[in-house]
Amino acid sequence: MKLDPTVMKDWQIAKAAEEKMLSIAQLAENLGLREDELIYYGKNLAKVDYRKVLDRTEGQKKARYIDVTAITPTPLGEGKTTTTIGLVDGLGRLGKSVAGAIRQPSGGPTFNIKGSAAGGGLAQCIPLTPFSLGLTGDIDKITNAHNLCMVALNARMQHENNYDDEKLAQRNLKRLDIDPQKVQLKWVIDFCAQGLRNIRMGIGGKMDGFEMDSGFAISVSSEIMAILAVARDLKDLRERIGKIVAAYSKSGEEITTEDLEVAGAMTAWLVEAINPTLMQTMEKNPVFVHAGPFANIAIGQSSVIADRLGSNLVDFHVTESGFGADIGFEKFWNIKCRYSGLKPDAVVLVATVRALKMHGGGPEVKPGKPLPKEYTEQNVELVEKGCSNLKAHIETVIKSGVTPVVCINSFHTDTPAEIEAIRTAAEAAGAYCAVSEHWLKGGEGAEELAETVIRAADEPSDFKFLYDFDMPVKKRIELIAKEVYGADGVEFAPEAEERIQQIEQDPDSSKMATCMVKTHLSLSHDPAIKGRPEGFTLPVRDIMVYKGAGLIVPIAGTIKLMPGTGSDPAFRRIDVDTQTGKVEGLF
Amino acid sequence: MKLDPTVMKDWQIAKAAEEKMLSIAQLAENLGLREDELIYYGKNLAKVDYRKVLDRTEGQKKARYIDVTAITPTPLGEGKTTTTIGLVDGLGRLGKSVAGAIRQPSGGPTFNIKGSAAGGGLAQCIPLTPFSLGLTGDIDKITNAHNLCMVALNARMQHENNYDDEKLAQRNLKRLDIDPQKVQLKWVIDFCAQGLRNIRMGIGGKMDGFEMDSGFAISVSSEIMAILAVARDLKDLRERIGKIVAAYSKSGEEITTEDLEVAGAMTAWLVEAINPTLMQTMEKNPVFVHAGPFANIAIGQSSVIADRLGSNLVDFHVTESGFGADIGFEKFWNIKCRYSGLKPDAVVLVATVRALKMHGGGPEVKPGKPLPKEYTEQNVELVEKGCSNLKAHIETVIKSGVTPVVCINSFHTDTPAEIEAIRTAAEAAGAYCAVSEHWLKGGEGAEELAETVIRAADEPSDFKFLYDFDMPVKKRIELIAKEVYGADGVEFAPEAEERIQQIEQDPDSSKMATCMVKTHLSLSHDPAIKGRPEGFTLPVRDIMVYKGAGLIVPIAGTIKLMPGTGSDPAFRRIDVDTQTGKVEGLF
Repeated sequence: MKLDPTVMKDWQIAKAAEEKMLSIAQLAENLGLREDELIYYGKNLAKVDYRKVLDRTEGQKKARYIDVTAITPTPLGEGKTTTTIGLVDGLGRLGKSVAGAIRQPSGGPTFNIKGSAAGGGLAQCIPLTPFSLGLTGDIDKITNAHNLCMVALNARMQHENNYDDEKLAQRNLKRLDIDPQKVQLKWVIDFCAQGLRNIRMGIGGKMDGFEMDSGFAISVSSEIMAILAVARDLKDLRERIGKIVAAYSKSGEEITTEDLEVAGAMTAWLVEAINPTLMQTMEKNPVFVHAGPFANIAIGQSSVIADRLGSNLVDFHVTESGFGADIGFEKFWNIKCRYSGLKPDAVVLVATVRALKMHGGGPEVKPGKPLPKEYTEQNVELVEKGCSNLKAHIETVIKSGVTPVVCINSFHTDTPAEIEAIRTAAEAAGAYCAVSEHWLKGGEGAEELAETVIRAADEPSDFKFLYDFDMPVKKRIELIAKEVYGADGVEFAPEAEERIQQIEQDPDSSKMATCMVKTHLSLSHDPAIKGRPEGFTLPVRDIMVYKGAGLIVPIAGTIKLMPGTGSDPAFRRIDVDTQTGKVEGLF
Repeated sequence: MKLDPTVMKDWQIAKAAEEKMLSIAQLAENLGLREDELIYYGKNLAKVDYRKVLDRTEGQKKARYIDVTAITPTPLGEGKTTTTIGLVDGLGRLGKSVAGAIRQPSGGPTFNIKGSAAGGGLAQCIPLTPFSLGLTGDIDKITNAHNLCMVALNARMQHENNYDDEKLAQRNLKRLDIDPQKVQLKWVIDFCAQGLRNIRMGIGGKMDGFEMDSGFAISVSSEIMAILAVARDLKDLRERIGKIVAAYSKSGEEITTEDLEVAGAMTAWLVEAINPTLMQTMEKNPVFVHAGPFANIAIGQSSVIADRLGSNLVDFHVTESGFGADIGFEKFWNIKCRYSGLKPDAVVLVATVRALKMHGGGPEVKPGKPLPKEYTEQNVELVEKGCSNLKAHIETVIKSGVTPVVCINSFHTDTPAEIEAIRTAAEAAGAYCAVSEHWLKGGEGAEELAETVIRAADEPSDFKFLYDFDMPVKKRIELIAKEVYGADGVEFAPEAEERIQQIEQDPDSSKMATCMVKTHLSLSHDPAIKGRPEGFTLPVRDIMVYKGAGLIVPIAGTIKLMPGTGSDPAFRRIDVDTQTGKVEGLF
């Protein structure tokens, strides 16, 4: 059967491809993995024992390491995951040994309103049903580890409330004196459960917990997920789990998970989750799926461990960093690469004619609404104007010392003149450029992109961080705002100033990275301003600290940690064929 | 290494045994399973594709089917799971092809205060760490399916509150008009989270859900878990999920998961969970672990599907029904066997000298307190008096038409005269009797028990239900109270009378079983009354209905659906060896 994405839905294509996919054993053998390095989960999934593989392969090879990021996207997205998968298959078609790494999706969007997050068209990660339905259980385990900490916290508050010091001492407990106003964590659940966003808990008698305001965030926003993404190994994971600050005492001391004596038990839930899951592209190339942290309060990309595996196993390892390069690539550059020790050899900037027209002054693009004619008819002028945004992201990548490759993610309404305008602008700014048709044609459509990426990766590179950890927090934030966003400066609200003073006094802060919260829909903090905004000051209204994940998080945007389920959610159309056991309507 | 339970802890024994356990492939081959009927989860676990196995084996053989239940236990338990595992190994030593079936434990007790629930001494189910830590994820999937229903319910209430009928119609929605006072379900989480027992949710603005009182129950008390235990196959599971009543409308109509359009998506989470997990005894015999429903509002035993598998695959299949025979066996008899179509060939009643002394008038037995000397020194008189309780349970089993075998679960302080007293009483009441030392000696210690069970199973049996579904609800309850508990009659509170009238008018109720809620610590409703209580009237204060699980649930005791985490919980002592990845202190 010819797979044609212009007439077939993504899940129909995936289903057809799954009939011919490699057995997981064959996929692993192709990747040079040994039988005892695989941990099977069902027929078509396996985790890879990261410890065994890293121990065996360390120092033997170092893949060319490619990051896929994007220009400032429209709300429809520019196809980064699709391009990541397409590039993997393009490199595969050129005979390179190659692997990819992408995030695990959250159950929230899957059952609400979503794309599959597995790519699209002829560039998808399969099998799609387990990918969308919890995979090997990592998010469930993060949910359990997180909520066990909340159980420990609230039960401790209850018991300290009910018992005097003597009774506590009988249980070998010292009073922690937790301040109910300064609890730092909420509970988590991996659905869009707006009704649990704000709750009053502990209602009832003295055996019904400690009464206080609380709420639920979506599981993928948990600090534990942020930790899973940056941990180098199980030891590092265990130590980071122990540093999570759950609350403060009434005298202002940090109450960590170690203080609650629950850090070990939390880690017990994660012993298997630390191993990445092995999947495949529709063209039978390996893809690691591991971690799915939020992009605002965490790095928003797959794990350090997955990239370390890919780097040791193949000649080209392709990873994805979420949103535009100002958010995704900046965190890849200054956080993920710092924690992994890996250095990128090329960075792909995904651009679409549609997004560039928007940045050039085209009408607003809204999900669920038909595109205005500016987007469906040739308009070279809008494209040329919009290239200011592309240029800003190219300059950012060049600042990191790595060669950028602009990938024009092809759409059937693109015209040769529009393409040429982008190519001219990209090359003038110092980037390579390639058109890619992976959505329509799979790896074959991505050959030009793959060839260009190989060439860019062959260029000498001089990767360097934007800031060192000894740089004061304020200066780091100003540097990111000016060098990456193009701001004139930063304005710190009094709350932020106060937090910065606390942070500077904390010796641990000199070991922590800076993880900005800002909209991905503009280079500035205002999502309405497209193109390359100038003459603005970035407002930082507060700063959060995640000591386990090792992140200082300046807030220059809104944080939504619990999305809402809409009035026409996807679960309405999902069911099971009880004869075959197949899940239907999932995508 | 000699494994000696008198000096080693259960987890130390398990760890030693795990070094020599069978590969899952070998275990499955011994059971006659084919490679493509296995679904691997990690190195030492696999699920069994129930559909493939049942289709291949249906009608080929029918195992002798043995249920293990107990006399009215002390709060310390009488060792039913240990005896189940011991009997499996005893039958194995006699050369029989044999399998067992036990429940999956909840994460709540594991991290709070627990025994391992995998048996004990030399009669354990292994490997122990995954058994205790979520196994193949079934409980997580039940949690997700249940909470997705709650998301659908609360989001629907929010949207109906915010939108008029026209706006709802644009989304193809009809107003359900859910009564916030008549929501039937709470959220679930698989921990002892007393602080979530009662919550106020939906606090905030009109986009923050629908504000109402709610709470969390422990996941294993979910109606979905009750359904997993009784479903015959995926079709049956899907239909039952769709019948769950989530709420009532303001006009009193049932609002089911189908009405919320979420039943299919809920089932999507359970497609793999319907397959039992294959584990092994320390003597390498197969054990199915599947489902772990509460014993009060559900059947409290492993699944119908696990028993159907065992029944088709071996010559002797041993299953366990929780608590004393008045609760566990009565539900096995009249609910589980009705839904499975299987008929037991023998029933093992586990008794200990300790429990019989308690029933004979011995002092109170309290967990965590040393046993009074009545329990550690010979006292034949107390044993003889206590046999009234044993006799009651023997009579119950005989009423079902099946031959009872009393298993004296041996303890080192038991004396020959005490044992003889029990044997005399058991045989006088019409039961076989055997002493078993499986805890101390494994299968070798259970050979007498195994031989006796074989003999009992060879007896002609005439298995018949205590009631038919056409019997009115009140009469069924009275029958159970009189015939099984020994009550003079039943007193129905006005709420119960009202509910019974509603139930009798509902045509579906004639397809539902009766699932009593009563303490397991006495044959009566009062846990303090030991022995064989007489002259009491059973008070039924309310009746709940679980239409998905197919259960009418009369309440003659207290229902705790969310236990509390104590002040010295097990999580304090759990940690991970980051070099080996092994979880420590779990047991």
